[in-house]
Amino acid sequence: MTVEMEIICVGNELLIGKTVNTNAYWMGKQATNLGVNVKRITVVQDLIEEIASVTCEALGRKPQFLVTTGGLGPTFDDKTLAGIAAGLNRKLELNQKALEMVKTRYVEYAKKRNLPLSQMTPARAKMATFPEKTEPVINPVGTAPAMRVEFDGTVLFALPGVPSEMEAIFTQSVAPMLKEAAGDRVFCEKSMYLEGIMESGLAPLIDEVMTANKGVYIKSHPMGAENKPCIEIHMTAAAKREEKPMETLMRAMNQLGKLVEENGGCRVQSK
Amino acid sequence: MTVEMEIICVGNELLIGKTVNTNAYWMGKQATNLGVNVKRITVVQDLIEEIASVTCEALGRKPQFLVTTGGLGPTFDDKTLAGIAAGLNRKLELNQKALEMVKTRYVEYAKKRNLPLSQMTPARAKMATFPEKTEPVINPVGTAPAMRVEFDGTVLFALPGVPSEMEAIFTQSVAPMLKEAAGDRVFCEKSMYLEGIMESGLAPLIDEVMTANKGVYIKSHPMGAENKPCIEIHMTAAAKREEKPMETLMRAMNQLGKLVEENGGCRVQSK
Repeated sequence: MTVEMEIICVGNELLIGKTVNTNAYWMGKQATNLGVNVKRITVVQDLIEEIASVTCEALGRKPQFLVTTGGLGPTFDDKTLAGIAAGLNRKLELNQKALEMVKTRYVEYAKKRNLPLSQMTPARAKMATFPEKTEPVINPVGTAPAMRVEFDGTVLFALPGVPSEMEAIFTQSVAPMLKEAAGDRVFCEKSMYLEGIMESGLAPLIDEVMTANKGVYIKSHPMGAENKPCIEIHMTAAAKREEKPMETLMRAMNQLGKLVEENGGCRVQSK
Repeated sequence: MTVEMEIICVGNELLIGKTVNTNAYWMGKQATNLGVNVKRITVVQDLIEEIASVTCEALGRKPQFLVTTGGLGPTFDDKTLAGIAAGLNRKLELNQKALEMVKTRYVEYAKKRNLPLSQMTPARAKMATFPEKTEPVINPVGTAPAMRVEFDGTVLFALPGVPSEMEAIFTQSVAPMLKEAAGDRVFCEKSMYLEGIMESGLAPLIDEVMTANKGVYIKSHPMGAENKPCIEIHMTAAAKREEKPMETLMRAMNQLGKLVEENGGCRVQSK
């Protein structure tokens, strides 16, 4: 059984071309390497109704995991928890466990800098204002706690958007759950680079190799300059460890390499 | 009237953490700078049913523009045109104009390399197999033509995923339409960097400045290391040119800078 996951990224900066979405890239890579099938990434604006609808839509597709990033901070534009609350049709409430986590961070911060002891302000309390019946998840490197809730078969995590915080919480609290769910399923990948053959000439060769090697997925990615075209062949396989998908992958790669040479192309070291 | 646009990126490589989604970043930036409101980016796998559903969902939200990238090439995994056909409930057919475009490219390619004249193969014809009642759009740098269709108030473009091809077609055929639709609407942005203040201390100051400067949107982005935190303040405004949004932005930035200084923080040159 494949374990499916979706990612929702919240933040205008990802839509206006201010920030490259490296969070989705990083998380997609981690989850895939843990044997999970990442089905979809959706990026939405910092608007409660957008976050609410995208959450409902994703939950409706019933992935085992749904992870959001962004929008957990103290400023007005941090709307993910309110959006998820609206999407789940739950009230927002001050979560006492989350509040303790936020307080601890402020006391540490003030101590480190010899500042007067920090006070709880509305902006700070906002980071502990969670949809009812949800759990805070400890943030080992930042102030805003993450959030976790199970809904109709999906485990939903809301993580911050600051990459160091997102990565730390994902590694500590999300990855172990994904790993357990994926069980003995592994993901393998391997690339080779070709010259002297067009993608359209390659197409029937790829079909032949995929037919002969069930479970191997082969994508061709044109690259290089127009006058020296090069194609990356990226092969992937996801299967149970005992099925030895890496061996199948290597066999398929050698077969394709031979076919390419018979058709006038050649393998090159890299791009 | 705001012109809205959605982006759909097709490709497993974007979901498994092989490729950073720079196409969505680039296109988001271009469209935003042309005065268009980019509402959503969705990344889906190379599966006909996924492409079909995401197309239907996006069309259902009725953006003026919907642009897809990826999946137009000759190999089996290039499924965008079939997916869009399924989404629009239209048959696929060999598009004669698209076929001419593909042929022209092959003749050029063979001539340049002194190869025997290229033949039309099923893989090549695939790139000219379009949903019925759609238009091919010339690809000035690659083989696969792009596709354009109007559906229920939305102009839908399907562009290739190779960045140089996507960018060339976007610039030549998509951007002029966006620019015309956006009219005299302009987008402005400006950043400043702060130290010595926490994001939660900043939150009420941002609220104050946004209330005083209608139309200015202020986001704070924590950055820098844990022991030397820095916050980027990113201000944006989208308005008619005659409303001089850049002037409003500069005024708001100076106001916020002063408030920050009164609260113990300071502006720094950059990150």
